[in-house]
Amino acid sequence: MPSRASRLPLIVVHGGAGDRAPDGPGEDDARAGCDAAARAGFAILAAGGSALDAVEAAVRMLEDDPIFNAGCGSCLTRAGTVEMDAAIMDGGDLRAGAVAVLDRVRNPIALARAVLDDGEHVLLAGAGALAFARERGVKRVARGYHITPSARADLARVLARRRAEAPARAQGGGGTVGAVARDAQGHVAAATSTGGMVGKRAGRIGDSPLVGAGTYADDVAGAASATGHGERIIQVALSKTAIDLLAAGASPAAAARRAVAMLGKRVGGRGGIILVGRTGGPGAAFNTRSMRWASRSEPG
Amino acid sequence: MPSRASRLPLIVVHGGAGDRAPDGPGEDDARAGCDAAARAGFAILAAGGSALDAVEAAVRMLEDDPIFNAGCGSCLTRAGTVEMDAAIMDGGDLRAGAVAVLDRVRNPIALARAVLDDGEHVLLAGAGALAFARERGVKRVARGYHITPSARADLARVLARRRAEAPARAQGGGGTVGAVARDAQGHVAAATSTGGMVGKRAGRIGDSPLVGAGTYADDVAGAASATGHGERIIQVALSKTAIDLLAAGASPAAAARRAVAMLGKRVGGRGGIILVGRTGGPGAAFNTRSMRWASRSEPG
Repeated sequence: MPSRASRLPLIVVHGGAGDRAPDGPGEDDARAGCDAAARAGFAILAAGGSALDAVEAAVRMLEDDPIFNAGCGSCLTRAGTVEMDAAIMDGGDLRAGAVAVLDRVRNPIALARAVLDDGEHVLLAGAGALAFARERGVKRVARGYHITPSARADLARVLARRRAEAPARAQGGGGTVGAVARDAQGHVAAATSTGGMVGKRAGRIGDSPLVGAGTYADDVAGAASATGHGERIIQVALSKTAIDLLAAGASPAAAARRAVAMLGKRVGGRGGIILVGRTGGPGAAFNTRSMRWASRSEPG
Repeated sequence: MPSRASRLPLIVVHGGAGDRAPDGPGEDDARAGCDAAARAGFAILAAGGSALDAVEAAVRMLEDDPIFNAGCGSCLTRAGTVEMDAAIMDGGDLRAGAVAVLDRVRNPIALARAVLDDGEHVLLAGAGALAFARERGVKRVARGYHITPSARADLARVLARRRAEAPARAQGGGGTVGAVARDAQGHVAAATSTGGMVGKRAGRIGDSPLVGAGTYADDVAGAASATGHGERIIQVALSKTAIDLLAAGASPAAAARRAVAMLGKRVGGRGGIILVGRTGGPGAAFNTRSMRWASRSEPG
């Protein structure tokens, strides 16, 4: 029987796996952003709030921080446009909501939550997602609201590299954000949000908004949020795989490690994952150079 | 050691799970359509062709048959438009290609195959998918090509029922199509294609194009294609779950049965699944009133 302490509320957030040096420019700010999001989410848990509300709040804060590749700060398609993806899942009843190829909505994760609460569908994309937002009274932000100078510079660099070495391919942007949490009632939830890959094709949907790929939560085992090369993560259903490892008895740390090892071995995929289980501490693993993440389990 | 016979080429196709009476109007034609698609796919296997080519050919034939809810004959959104989803996956290397919210392309599964062959992305939606089709020289069909009188009648019936009983909800259309195959080299593949649910919101993406939900293939275990209430299938990652059961040693028949039972138990989901394993015969199960399916393992 696990001790009471091992079932205390817990939140883990990530700000993306990638090839940045952990001591590179901006990484202190990114770490501070992850810490702030973990604190904000944990405040909800500490007040008796739900894991679902906590992961939404944490991801919303990361979306608003332009240093991350989600919401404001999203990386750009080949055409220089923003197309954001996000998902949120409630481990209590497996309800999920997700949006993809989305622009003009300040916080994609809030719209994903509205899809979950509505309950008719799980995944809405493009113009249909925007129509749903309008129906729900979500205010539009100006076109270009999410685009930062840094995102423009990243796209220019990728396009220049492509002109040098054909063929054109999208590049891992890094900086996807996510959160997983366990609340005082023992429910778990997961949320993930991203701008995708730098220079991706218009219409490309990555792993983040796909249940089982970038995001999964099930009270039976735990919750997962992934980051990295989305196509490879999709092919191995990384988040569902990690949750299955938890269900089979692995610790969150071991399940994260084994899931990421499988990603590398089966499809040469690079990325990372964060986990909470029904009990115990956070799990986090990555096979990239770095992954920004933070966790919080005690108030104060 | 399994006998050589148990590893012979095999194809299984489905034409959707739903609430039709097995002896209802059109069901003879639907069965004949499934048989013809199984024959066409099997001819490729018998000639030494790949499982990937076989499932694509079978699904393409089902898309062209207006009796099924995929390609021509797709059900309609609330707005009366066609938005098709399809995916194809190669169990040999876990490569996958998928398209969603697609119109104007005669055979969505052929475009999904082009996404797989291209290799940059896994899932393309909406206008971006159509731009990719244009880049690949895929000819557009006229708007309305896929719309049949029967699909218009189904939408009118659903909308009328909604006016009577608020709130509006999409209805399971049934008639999604799919195929799974094992070739002489021992590779497996899966393909699924659908018009979705009658009266769905614009932008809704169901399980069919989502790797792990409606479609999965892995030479380590087998291949799966699902049909039914897409949102529920997504929540439990039905196809990946069935493949994991195969990997754990269940027969295709038992894995299909257990996966569908789990779908009902965990989320009250209704639908069905077809499977091939590395060895043995076909697996098929459903918890709806009926599922149209056919398999073929011997030439002639």
